[in-house]
Amino acid sequence: MSRLSPSVLRFIRVARVAHLATASRNSQPHVIPICFVFDGKHFYSPIDEKPKRTSPAKLKRLINIQANPQAALLIDRYGEVWNHLAYLLILGKAKILYRGAAHTEAVRRLRRKYPQYRQMAIQTRPMIRITPTRWTFWGNP
Amino acid sequence: MSRLSPSVLRFIRVARVAHLATASRNSQPHVIPICFVFDGKHFYSPIDEKPKRTSPAKLKRLINIQANPQAALLIDRYGEVWNHLAYLLILGKAKILYRGAAHTEAVRRLRRKYPQYRQMAIQTRPMIRITPTRWTFWGNP
Repeated sequence: MSRLSPSVLRFIRVARVAHLATASRNSQPHVIPICFVFDGKHFYSPIDEKPKRTSPAKLKRLINIQANPQAALLIDRYGEVWNHLAYLLILGKAKILYRGAAHTEAVRRLRRKYPQYRQMAIQTRPMIRITPTRWTFWGNP
Repeated sequence: MSRLSPSVLRFIRVARVAHLATASRNSQPHVIPICFVFDGKHFYSPIDEKPKRTSPAKLKRLINIQANPQAALLIDRYGEVWNHLAYLLILGKAKILYRGAAHTEAVRRLRRKYPQYRQMAIQTRPMIRITPTRWTFWGNP
């Protein structure tokens, strides 16, 4: 993967929400908003308590990732002045982490970025890790 | 498809941007931000002049739709008060329109919603139409 420039890294850092697209084995796409952190190599997104009604095992994004690890992650900025529109599209491989050092470190980073997670037991929940393989930036960072 | 409630219809109406996920024939997902209108039955999104560098025929979303019409469209609201998060996920079939009454009507609606389109020749460009087959609303509209 080519290197991310400092301005693109800043664009990633200030974003509070991203959109994660997955696809089932038979190519039905799915997309949801996610909270995330980036450690310079991987993106991490927790399966948090927001969707209280569903057990993690039933979440479509996890079912899709288990069947098909190909993922697309989008970070974008919208505004009514269209000269300022921008997006970063990342294609990569998704994997579900259940525990371990990378999981623990991602929880720590997520709680630093999102105070909301300090009260949620994300350390006991699965974590999606995305390893970028390609990226495209469009617009002015 | 079950009926959309008035509050979900309002949620759609106030949204300025949505996210469209498509997938290639071999299940590689793709996602981009789109401008859109909804006429009560279909969603329409123009291939506008924003990505000036690429001819429509080379756009990944169009290549994907031609190979695989399955699509997912997400309209969501993010904010730091997580009780107010909400999203509408629509699964459906995408089709590319090049001309005709539905294309003309979609251009009219898009120019009413987005003044920015009044100066853009979207009437000469392809239009993506999404016919919803299923939807899920999460959060408080």
